Amino acid sequence: MRFSNGVATANRAAECYSQRQQPRPAALGGAPEGAAGMLRKSDLSAFFAPRAVAVYGASQAAHKVGAEVFASLVAGGFAGELIPLNPVAQTICGRPTRASLSASGEKVDLAVVAVPRERAEEAVQDALGAQARAIVVLSAGFREAGEAGIAAEERLRALCHRHGARLLGPNCLGVINTQNRMCAAFSLGCPAAGRISLVSQSGALCTAIVEEAHGRGIGFAKIVSLGNKADLTEIDVLGYLAEDEPTGAIACYLEHIDNGAAFLEVAQYVSERKPLIVFKSGTSEAGSRAAMSHTGSLAGSESTYAAAFRRAGAIRARRIEELLDIPLAMTRQPLPAGPRVAIISNAGGPGIIAADALAEQNLVVAALTGATSAALRARLPRGGAVTGAAAAAAGTRTPVDVLGDADPERYAEAVRAAVSDRDVDGVLVVLAPQAMTRPEETAARIASAACAAKPIYAAFLGGASVRRGQETLRQAGVADFCSPERAALAFSAAWQYASWRGRPPREVRRFPVNRRGAERVLRRLERAHRSLVSEPDAKRMLRCYGFSVPEGFLADSADEAVAVAETLGFPVAVKMSSPDLAHKTDVGGVRLSIATPQAVRDTYDLFALRMRAMWPEAPADTVYVERMCPPGQELVVGVVRDPRFGPVLMFGLGGIFVEALRDVTFSLGPITADEARDMIRSTRAWDRMQGARGGALANTAAVAEALQRLSQIAADFPELAEIEINPLIVGGAGQPAWVVDARMTVSRPETPP
Amino acid sequence: MRFSNGVATANRAAECYSQRQQPRPAALGGAPEGAAGMLRKSDLSAFFAPRAVAVYGASQAAHKVGAEVFASLVAGGFAGELIPLNPVAQTICGRPTRASLSASGEKVDLAVVAVPRERAEEAVQDALGAQARAIVVLSAGFREAGEAGIAAEERLRALCHRHGARLLGPNCLGVINTQNRMCAAFSLGCPAAGRISLVSQSGALCTAIVEEAHGRGIGFAKIVSLGNKADLTEIDVLGYLAEDEPTGAIACYLEHIDNGAAFLEVAQYVSERKPLIVFKSGTSEAGSRAAMSHTGSLAGSESTYAAAFRRAGAIRARRIEELLDIPLAMTRQPLPAGPRVAIISNAGGPGIIAADALAEQNLVVAALTGATSAALRARLPRGGAVTGAAAAAAGTRTPVDVLGDADPERYAEAVRAAVSDRDVDGVLVVLAPQAMTRPEETAARIASAACAAKPIYAAFLGGASVRRGQETLRQAGVADFCSPERAALAFSAAWQYASWRGRPPREVRRFPVNRRGAERVLRRLERAHRSLVSEPDAKRMLRCYGFSVPEGFLADSADEAVAVAETLGFPVAVKMSSPDLAHKTDVGGVRLSIATPQAVRDTYDLFALRMRAMWPEAPADTVYVERMCPPGQELVVGVVRDPRFGPVLMFGLGGIFVEALRDVTFSLGPITADEARDMIRSTRAWDRMQGARGGALANTAAVAEALQRLSQIAADFPELAEIEINPLIVGGAGQPAWVVDARMTVSRPETPP
Repeated sequence: MRFSNGVATANRAAECYSQRQQPRPAALGGAPEGAAGMLRKSDLSAFFAPRAVAVYGASQAAHKVGAEVFASLVAGGFAGELIPLNPVAQTICGRPTRASLSASGEKVDLAVVAVPRERAEEAVQDALGAQARAIVVLSAGFREAGEAGIAAEERLRALCHRHGARLLGPNCLGVINTQNRMCAAFSLGCPAAGRISLVSQSGALCTAIVEEAHGRGIGFAKIVSLGNKADLTEIDVLGYLAEDEPTGAIACYLEHIDNGAAFLEVAQYVSERKPLIVFKSGTSEAGSRAAMSHTGSLAGSESTYAAAFRRAGAIRARRIEELLDIPLAMTRQPLPAGPRVAIISNAGGPGIIAADALAEQNLVVAALTGATSAALRARLPRGGAVTGAAAAAAGTRTPVDVLGDADPERYAEAVRAAVSDRDVDGVLVVLAPQAMTRPEETAARIASAACAAKPIYAAFLGGASVRRGQETLRQAGVADFCSPERAALAFSAAWQYASWRGRPPREVRRFPVNRRGAERVLRRLERAHRSLVSEPDAKRMLRCYGFSVPEGFLADSADEAVAVAETLGFPVAVKMSSPDLAHKTDVGGVRLSIATPQAVRDTYDLFALRMRAMWPEAPADTVYVERMCPPGQELVVGVVRDPRFGPVLMFGLGGIFVEALRDVTFSLGPITADEARDMIRSTRAWDRMQGARGGALANTAAVAEALQRLSQIAADFPELAEIEINPLIVGGAGQPAWVVDARMTVSRPETPP
Repeated sequence: MRFSNGVATANRAAECYSQRQQPRPAALGGAPEGAAGMLRKSDLSAFFAPRAVAVYGASQAAHKVGAEVFASLVAGGFAGELIPLNPVAQTICGRPTRASLSASGEKVDLAVVAVPRERAEEAVQDALGAQARAIVVLSAGFREAGEAGIAAEERLRALCHRHGARLLGPNCLGVINTQNRMCAAFSLGCPAAGRISLVSQSGALCTAIVEEAHGRGIGFAKIVSLGNKADLTEIDVLGYLAEDEPTGAIACYLEHIDNGAAFLEVAQYVSERKPLIVFKSGTSEAGSRAAMSHTGSLAGSESTYAAAFRRAGAIRARRIEELLDIPLAMTRQPLPAGPRVAIISNAGGPGIIAADALAEQNLVVAALTGATSAALRARLPRGGAVTGAAAAAAGTRTPVDVLGDADPERYAEAVRAAVSDRDVDGVLVVLAPQAMTRPEETAARIASAACAAKPIYAAFLGGASVRRGQETLRQAGVADFCSPERAALAFSAAWQYASWRGRPPREVRRFPVNRRGAERVLRRLERAHRSLVSEPDAKRMLRCYGFSVPEGFLADSADEAVAVAETLGFPVAVKMSSPDLAHKTDVGGVRLSIATPQAVRDTYDLFALRMRAMWPEAPADTVYVERMCPPGQELVVGVVRDPRFGPVLMFGLGGIFVEALRDVTFSLGPITADEARDMIRSTRAWDRMQGARGGALANTAAVAEALQRLSQIAADFPELAEIEINPLIVGGAGQPAWVVDARMTVSRPETPP
């Protein structure tokens, strides 16, 4: 197990960042061609379907890893050839051991190495000589154990690389394929076959999940313990599983994502074929990167991962249990076509709890159509309840109550009514044990009412009395959960995935822009060794990219400032301008709505006085005089470059409120028009821009376009580390979105001019 | 089981509201004297410790409620007298049945009625004649079954009342006391003894929880199924359990809280003695009450319950599982003295997940002090990790990693080091099954390292391999959880409760005010049959209560408006004033910073024109002219009267942002100075008021005082349904908080004047 603490995470982030600057050489086993290249290289069939498997360190000693692996392979019923390797001659499960393959002359596809670190290299060498193209090193003591281990791990990796073989681990639990009953792993037993594949960076968690799954009757297609990821990473394994027919959904636990771009690409490749559920731990630590802008300080690790996963269609698990709950729901039942869930319950309390849980997941308690609800109501005894369209129109949406004495048939009738109703996208059956309840038969009848078009989830509450009912549900392929809350969460995930699958085609619009003009500004700053782009320069670049920027000029004297103001026409804004000034408002360096030449003169003199105090060495006291914008809604838009995932766009209500209120949203660049609109819609700014109390109807199209143009400039200039337009002021229909203030930073080591 | 759907909830809310207006007569079994009275009446010992118990409907028929209850009483080992009643002579468990107690002449304390509804009244009559003072009616078919049932339930209640007896149910599962092994219930079996008492309004959920608890080795002290709450409610039962020694914590599931004031009183009474954990379902539905103010529309059912529970010290459960997890933590382990939790894990992944979970619960990953961490580090093998004070100072706080091969003693050493460390408030032990892991012995060694001063929670992940380890934890009294996430949540609840227990004494300050003056305004409005209080009247009342209100006067003509403005001094604000105008800004009825007499005249004429169009019948075109306030931070404060819990204070960032951004907080009135400060601190407005980027240092003391004064006026005038000051503008230190706009409504049926 690689131990990961906060320090390691921070180091790792830095390392990734420098990797972006300097691509990792192919010789170090990276993925220089990017994810597409990795996918092509991902033929890992020797790991999953070997004809012959060698186990180094196989023995009969109790509590030895090698012994356990070999016993698992035998017990699992693997039909291929199994070769135990042990320098001390013995017979294991009727198979005589060999000292080495070079001695015996046998050939293998897969070698599992379970010898101490000191002897691992020798074992791998032997396996490679026997044509093994898949090497699994279970041994610990490598990268996780300090300098010597890191060097040893690197030697292993290079050795495999030279022979064209791939390496899983070291320091992992191994690999399991239930299709051919190949359990080349320890500490995981021989799990039942199922449609979920599990990929885990943590061996201990892998064991815990597999044990938990066993208790819940959940099987697996393939299990891969990644260990130290010396060669094979989640990228390779996910790429393989994407096309693995028996794998219906993938549950993945990750601590580090080393190559963000490749992960995004493979995650999307998987998600287009089957659901990918990812638990990414270690997202709570505060981002340590110093940030110049609001955008930078708000775009923490957490929101960036959220944006990245959303883009790729990967579903985020936030509790360990969700790594089973969500893929279970998606492999056992069809995806929902909408968020309307009919609740069928034999008890009021649990029904209400289910309704609360749906609401919390932004799902809707379905109301049956008039015809269906009337028919069902007629079948229920007095006291039963069905919410029909009329009640729903009046705002009442409640569970279908089949009453405490509901027999299996009454449940089945309610399920049939719900699944056949056009206003229902899925069914959540809640059963609480009561005097007359027959959980087992009810489970069977519910399953018989299932249809292929709509998902049926069940939450049988209680303990021993519902145990066999839950087993019946599982055998019949109904998705069963321990509580309505967990069922609601899984439904929400399934609906989120279905929505992603049904998303419109992504078309990133490229606007015609004056790229050369913006480049000239950047080159000039480069020559001056500047990393902070001043407001006038930032605005110049944004103007080149088609943004509406108020007209303005720099002035080095009071006379010049007045002349500029008179040219522009009053009122004007006057701002301090210094290449060293990041936050003008913090030092009182902005004056708005200046209406007279005398006031311009006064402001210039005041600013000059202050700037001289702050920067005595500055060659001139420069201010920026610009035309005032018409009033409108203040917004903030920005982009920050995440070391893992590249440009991340931000949108929020602007001005002083952005940092205080954090009502902001993020999306990975490049963005489409749809995604820009979704960003705006997902904040509370949307209501304000639709003319809600006190707000004027705003030109949201202009804002969406600004976000797309921002996305374009970020894509065109990778050296732009952060861009923030704050505020962007947007007027009503037909009015532009004005860049009132803007700042940028360039990622380049700054040396004073 | 009483069925509760959205309709019922809404009706019930209305009913409660009218009850506040007209106290329910004592003859109907209400609690006219309030909660204190109810507590005095809550001697329910006949329910829990009867000498003799009669069971009406006892039989040997399979699947009959009466048969099951009698069998439970016998099987449970109840030592008191058990009398089976059945008109058909038979012998049950060796005890001959009686036809009636009036015939046999026997006396009982408790009667359990399990006969069909039609015969329930007769049974209760018989029991009352035999001096039963505790009646439990299990039979269904009462209030939940329509008109006839409601009448029958009312007759039962009245009958018991006439005989001075108390009634539990009808339509409930019964009552269990594990101390005397009295299982007078069906569908619950005979649970093990424990320190948690369970009170549930839903029978089905009660069964589910008891079954779940059985599977997790959790016992109960007392279990009460409330059923229809015809007489006994949660108020009575909680009052009794507050003083019940064997009850260490109470888990309570409620669908309706009928008497908010009484609930608050009894909840606080309980919380001062032992933890009360409440799952209140049905809080997701949108409040249906029409609201005039932001305060009203934001103070939904959810936030009001949160404020009420917080005030009373009751801990909120939000998932069913928490109804066991939280009381389990609190009854098995001491309360924490702080939020710093040391994580001890044998695997990196689960450790990181635990750290993420603590962060999500606003807890802190503890760092050991220098001495302790050095000592522990010396005991760990290479690769182990301990975060010491130095790393913590550098911002790194990580789990203690005892490594994958950790034996029981290594775990115990780490636990001992953590509990003895002054920088640690509690310990979370995470164990993931690995090759060398010995869960059972580890559990025993962890338990041996426990101390009485700090809580130790454990999360053993996995399935079968850790099962016996989990059992060992339970037997040893360590709080065990299925996942680090659930352990973190329980720790957070325990810390929340400990903080509440340690809160400073509540002292509500009463300011000297001109109450008579405010009353005069209200009486005048009453005579005019007005329910909407105009801005000038609202400000008049607030001035009586010591608020800083800008000077201002009404004007009926342009000349008068100019004269007022000149008296006040320019600039002034001019506002439309009409008793029918709730939202002036929505109709453009506010003009600020008017600087000249001509502009005042223009504004008057414009407003008069518009107001005449809106209210042609109005006697005069009145505007309100007032002095402009100095600039400052815009806030909103308000109070709304909740039908269940009375006045609820609101605080948030003001102006147009309150509704759009919902960064608001609520607290039940009356509030103390501490609570007012906590309100301000709990919003993002706090940072702004502390001078964070762009904000000026604001006089928070003035805002806290405004909240307290608001609390006082709401307490003094129960007819004030809503008050909102929006904006309240607060300046720097020493500056007052100005009431810039205010509105109020009076709850009185409005008839046009």
